[in-house]
Amino acid sequence: MSLDIPPYQKNFASDNNSGVHPEILKAIESVNIGHAPAYGGDPVTEQGQEVFKKHFGNNIDVYFVFNGTASNVISLKSLLKSYESVICSDTSHLNIDECGAPEAIGGFKLITVSTRDGKLSLKEIEKKYIRLGDQHYSQPRAISLTQPTELGTVYTAGEIESITKWAHERNMFVHIDGARFANAVYTLKTDFKKLSSDLGVDVLSLGGTKNGLLFGEAIVFFNSELSEEFKFVRKQSMQLPSKMRFLAAQFHAYLSTDLWYRIAKNSCDRAQELAQKLKELPEVKITQPVQSNGVFAEFPRTWIKPLKEKYFFYIWNEETFEARWMCSFDTLSEDVEAFVGEMKKLRVQS
Amino acid sequence: MSLDIPPYQKNFASDNNSGVHPEILKAIESVNIGHAPAYGGDPVTEQGQEVFKKHFGNNIDVYFVFNGTASNVISLKSLLKSYESVICSDTSHLNIDECGAPEAIGGFKLITVSTRDGKLSLKEIEKKYIRLGDQHYSQPRAISLTQPTELGTVYTAGEIESITKWAHERNMFVHIDGARFANAVYTLKTDFKKLSSDLGVDVLSLGGTKNGLLFGEAIVFFNSELSEEFKFVRKQSMQLPSKMRFLAAQFHAYLSTDLWYRIAKNSCDRAQELAQKLKELPEVKITQPVQSNGVFAEFPRTWIKPLKEKYFFYIWNEETFEARWMCSFDTLSEDVEAFVGEMKKLRVQS
Amino acid sequence: MSLDIPPYQKNFASDNNSGVHPEILKAIESVNIGHAPAYGGDPVTEQGQEVFKKHFGNNIDVYFVFNGTASNVISLKSLLKSYESVICSDTSHLNIDECGAPEAIGGFKLITVSTRDGKLSLKEIEKKYIRLGDQHYSQPRAISLTQPTELGTVYTAGEIESITKWAHERNMFVHIDGARFANAVYTLKTDFKKLSSDLGVDVLSLGGTKNGLLFGEAIVFFNSELSEEFKFVRKQSMQLPSKMRFLAAQFHAYLSTDLWYRIAKNSCDRAQELAQKLKELPEVKITQPVQSNGVFAEFPRTWIKPLKEKYFFYIWNEETFEARWMCSFDTLSEDVEAFVGEMKKLRVQS
Amino acid sequence: MSLDIPPYQKNFASDNNSGVHPEILKAIESVNIGHAPAYGGDPVTEQGQEVFKKHFGNNIDVYFVFNGTASNVISLKSLLKSYESVICSDTSHLNIDECGAPEAIGGFKLITVSTRDGKLSLKEIEKKYIRLGDQHYSQPRAISLTQPTELGTVYTAGEIESITKWAHERNMFVHIDGARFANAVYTLKTDFKKLSSDLGVDVLSLGGTKNGLLFGEAIVFFNSELSEEFKFVRKQSMQLPSKMRFLAAQFHAYLSTDLWYRIAKNSCDRAQELAQKLKELPEVKITQPVQSNGVFAEFPRTWIKPLKEKYFFYIWNEETFEARWMCSFDTLSEDVEAFVGEMKKLRVQS
Repeated sequence: MSLDIPPYQKNFASDNNSGVHPEILKAIESVNIGHAPAYGGDPVTEQGQEVFKKHFGNNIDVYFVFNGTASNVISLKSLLKSYESVICSDTSHLNIDECGAPEAIGGFKLITVSTRDGKLSLKEIEKKYIRLGDQHYSQPRAISLTQPTELGTVYTAGEIESITKWAHERNMFVHIDGARFANAVYTLKTDFKKLSSDLGVDVLSLGGTKNGLLFGEAIVFFNSELSEEFKFVRKQSMQLPSKMRFLAAQFHAYLSTDLWYRIAKNSCDRAQELAQKLKELPEVKITQPVQSNGVFAEFPRTWIKPLKEKYFFYIWNEETFEARWMCSFDTLSEDVEAFVGEMKKLRVQS
Repeated sequence: MSLDIPPYQKNFASDNNSGVHPEILKAIESVNIGHAPAYGGDPVTEQGQEVFKKHFGNNIDVYFVFNGTASNVISLKSLLKSYESVICSDTSHLNIDECGAPEAIGGFKLITVSTRDGKLSLKEIEKKYIRLGDQHYSQPRAISLTQPTELGTVYTAGEIESITKWAHERNMFVHIDGARFANAVYTLKTDFKKLSSDLGVDVLSLGGTKNGLLFGEAIVFFNSELSEEFKFVRKQSMQLPSKMRFLAAQFHAYLSTDLWYRIAKNSCDRAQELAQKLKELPEVKITQPVQSNGVFAEFPRTWIKPLKEKYFFYIWNEETFEARWMCSFDTLSEDVEAFVGEMKKLRVQS
Repeated sequence: MSLDIPPYQKNFASDNNSGVHPEILKAIESVNIGHAPAYGGDPVTEQGQEVFKKHFGNNIDVYFVFNGTASNVISLKSLLKSYESVICSDTSHLNIDECGAPEAIGGFKLITVSTRDGKLSLKEIEKKYIRLGDQHYSQPRAISLTQPTELGTVYTAGEIESITKWAHERNMFVHIDGARFANAVYTLKTDFKKLSSDLGVDVLSLGGTKNGLLFGEAIVFFNSELSEEFKFVRKQSMQLPSKMRFLAAQFHAYLSTDLWYRIAKNSCDRAQELAQKLKELPEVKITQPVQSNGVFAEFPRTWIKPLKEKYFFYIWNEETFEARWMCSFDTLSEDVEAFVGEMKKLRVQS
Repeated sequence: MSLDIPPYQKNFASDNNSGVHPEILKAIESVNIGHAPAYGGDPVTEQGQEVFKKHFGNNIDVYFVFNGTASNVISLKSLLKSYESVICSDTSHLNIDECGAPEAIGGFKLITVSTRDGKLSLKEIEKKYIRLGDQHYSQPRAISLTQPTELGTVYTAGEIESITKWAHERNMFVHIDGARFANAVYTLKTDFKKLSSDLGVDVLSLGGTKNGLLFGEAIVFFNSELSEEFKFVRKQSMQLPSKMRFLAAQFHAYLSTDLWYRIAKNSCDRAQELAQKLKELPEVKITQPVQSNGVFAEFPRTWIKPLKEKYFFYIWNEETFEARWMCSFDTLSEDVEAFVGEMKKLRVQS
């Protein structure tokens, strides 16, 4: 019973529909030698954590976990008491795509802010900072930003800094859901440190899976006091990988060369290309600024079904039928062209 | 900053100290082609689930998760209400090696039975089956067996069947923690089905990581009514892998050929060899029947430190200093010989 | 060290600032005779549950608990799986006054609907009924209405029925937070049954504490299949009163005569009086329809401080400084007059 | 439909089968005057908390909650992180009579010690203090003693002190489940302070319900740093009584005079009488030292059924049929005599 692997195809559904970047896979193979202590007590894990310091500075603590749901939920869980809550965008992955894990597993409440472009503004955050000390009210204690947002937009460094400053004056924490963080670094022509630790961020969920890794995310604490007992939280939350070296080696490959940059660049550049080409179609309305690797657009509803038959993708907003198309490390210009070509065909038919 | 990979070495600490079996790694590479729907909606995942039917029969539901903690905790969580409890051995991984995950994440209570060889007996289980309908008492609803046990022993098919029969007469579930299940199948010269579904087991956590996989475990439900809504439990419990094809491909490789058998055979045969050779040392007392891939023994305490300097391993019992040595798919006869040789050296020195 | 009891005074802060209705206290005394089985196994508890049938029909199950937080959280918890969510108003007590208990203790997610008068409309509920079967999304499974609402408004029978009908067509549950339910029954000139079971409501938290009881709420299930194992949920949730007879006797007194009606009538009639008198003050703007025992109003901010010095009350909305004034079973017309008189004095002074 | 109150009767089932002590009921009535701020912000609550200082010293924080399950579970929950565990006796109420609330609601693990008389010994506790810093193991962080124990025995001051000293040297907390704490104070001829704060206990659940109160327990923290944010834990755990004055007044009555002493004295003296009289029956074997208000005994199984028909009581041990008989504040010598008389009748008949 040999495996029947379907022929080569690409879609624009999500960057986790792509496979593993060849350099990442090579890194996995390279550490498949002999025995190594499990659960992170091995030299590869140590080096995989160490390489983060090159990008984020020395005063950090890095923990690898399996997936993005966990990196967000358990990093926040470790910072909060059960009667404290997290302010986040109503469109955040944390709020609408974790099947209630923040509440049921994290045990904390989300206070959602309605946003247009996925970005929290200080003005809106302030409205949620109420009833301090009132025992009847779950106390606001953390702010969770997604960078880039779920709608493909990015926060500027200044925007983040104003939020962290405000938060720290109130003894609150700032968490970044950075499932695609490198894309924001690329778009803003900055570096990891300038976009996180330098801005006072407390903890970052740095994504791997959506950036060419086989699996794995890194939780980066920028204040090691916050992570003193995090190892227990990770283990209890069922997120301690035993053969850790294979996760660490991936991040080492991702961050020790410019691989992270090349992946981000291709993903974002292709998204710009896609947006550019879609502008040729008057029926298609791009609905969000394209600042990362995703394009959001509305287009004739009659096209959805035939287009989905060729290319799997998500309808982002069930009310407006806004669609989301994502580019990956391996999206080629011809893939973009072929996709838009398909839409052009539909246009002629309709 | 290139990765400094330490030289080849082997230890007897645990079967998760070994790496990835070459055939498994090849399977991962083989599916790294193009894009595929995430979260299990791809053809490779379908085939990875399908191959389980060859071994376990058709009426099953298979879910892949990241690790063993999760496979045990969330499969049980999905079967239980928060006021129901699980009877298990006091030496079970569930009880002493999950950092309280059953209680804190699963939300259920464990009722532990003191055992000598890690095996639950019906006689002892019966003593815990009390206070039915009494609202003050968490109601016993599931039994969790480890096969092979954490002490390297195995339940016979008859022993398991008597427990499932007893359990089902009381509307209880039987779960098997099968982190090394294939080893029991090998030792008992039987097959997967005869050792699980045929005996009335309700759900099996089938281990991958400790049997040569890079990561990943499979939860096998033998009654699809029990798993109807399990996908929500898995996602909420932060255990839904997005690039699922790479997990499914590993299990496909493991189960579609005799790979599982070869891995189990080598692991168990080397453990027998190790036990055999240790008998030559009168100072070493083997403390448990060797029925799987582990050897448990007491030996002069003065040997522990120097031996650990050469070979990392665990002291199993902090009171008696009983040690545990585990063999893997890649343990060679010469590794066993070298290890025992080291002990012989210590013997001479002492 | 004898107790220094402050002199008689009344306020309009909340109906739980009032004491115990004399007839309720008498009922407590009347059952303080000899010994009785604890935890509800006594004849008084049986009669206390039985009396509910007079008002709600025979096919019900009644459970007494300590307080309102619990009656809402654990009744919903018993209906839901951890990956299911509750649609409720953003101003609901459940959402903003339980310190995160629904999430942390109930383990379920709230999906909030923005409302003007505290009432959920079917149109808004429908917008939240999305992504069914999508494992990434906590599945909407219950709707929780507050009757009367936290803003003193009431749902008509027709409004509730349209919601329960819609919900049942989708296999969803309808819960009513009825902390002041009797007030709605009085306002709508109807009876308990016509406003709950007859409309298809699944479970009602019937309030006692805010209606003259010393403490205690009743959870009424209108479908005994739903409550089959509820006793375990109650006990585990730390809400099983041991000397149950003293709780049951209060509800017996409340429901076996027209006491519930007299309490509701006085509370609501005084609120109408208060609203009437406030209309004489042009600076005071009543902000919600007065349909229960509360009056919501905006008034000059400079009055707040001096008025609060005489009468403790709550500012409901921290942005608009909308205040809430509640009447109780023991609020007299002269209390209303004195309170408004105080405002008149402030008016002259300003 | 008037309440049918069954005729006066007494049993020996539990001290929560008795009613409310008349002085307690009088205290409730005495504070039923006018309105008072809810949730504990009233002068009666302040005095109710203050009176504890007379007995326990000044450096304490007192919180009232509804019942004993809650006082144990939430006081411990407030001290622990989810990956920390509590060492307790296997016969403790916490372990076997809370329907899994410690695990499901508290979120912590219990490490049980097998005991003969319900008392933890330091020697046994030490055996459970293992695997510190090991991320796979829930870390022992608190010890919970029951005083008097569930088996009617008492710890001496010296025994408790040796445990708290040992615990504090290890940065662990000591909690006392004192559902019947006053009985231990009486038996040991000491006072509250000498048996708690002076011994270094961190937190005490001081029982009310089983000592003549209508309902209510007090959580006494002996280090106010530990309770800084406890109000949020109490509210979220659904244990914040709104009409708090009625709970505080009970404790004020209990502790401001010698009422607590008279209740403890009667309960314990009657138990001694019962034990004395039972010794006249050679078939009855008293199984535990009588050091509180309970008597444990084994007696002919054929007597159980007829005796239970007259007097409701519990079989404590389902294996040995050991029975438990408890005395209350209102148990009279003639009640004891009548009960033993009934047994004498059964003796003659058998």
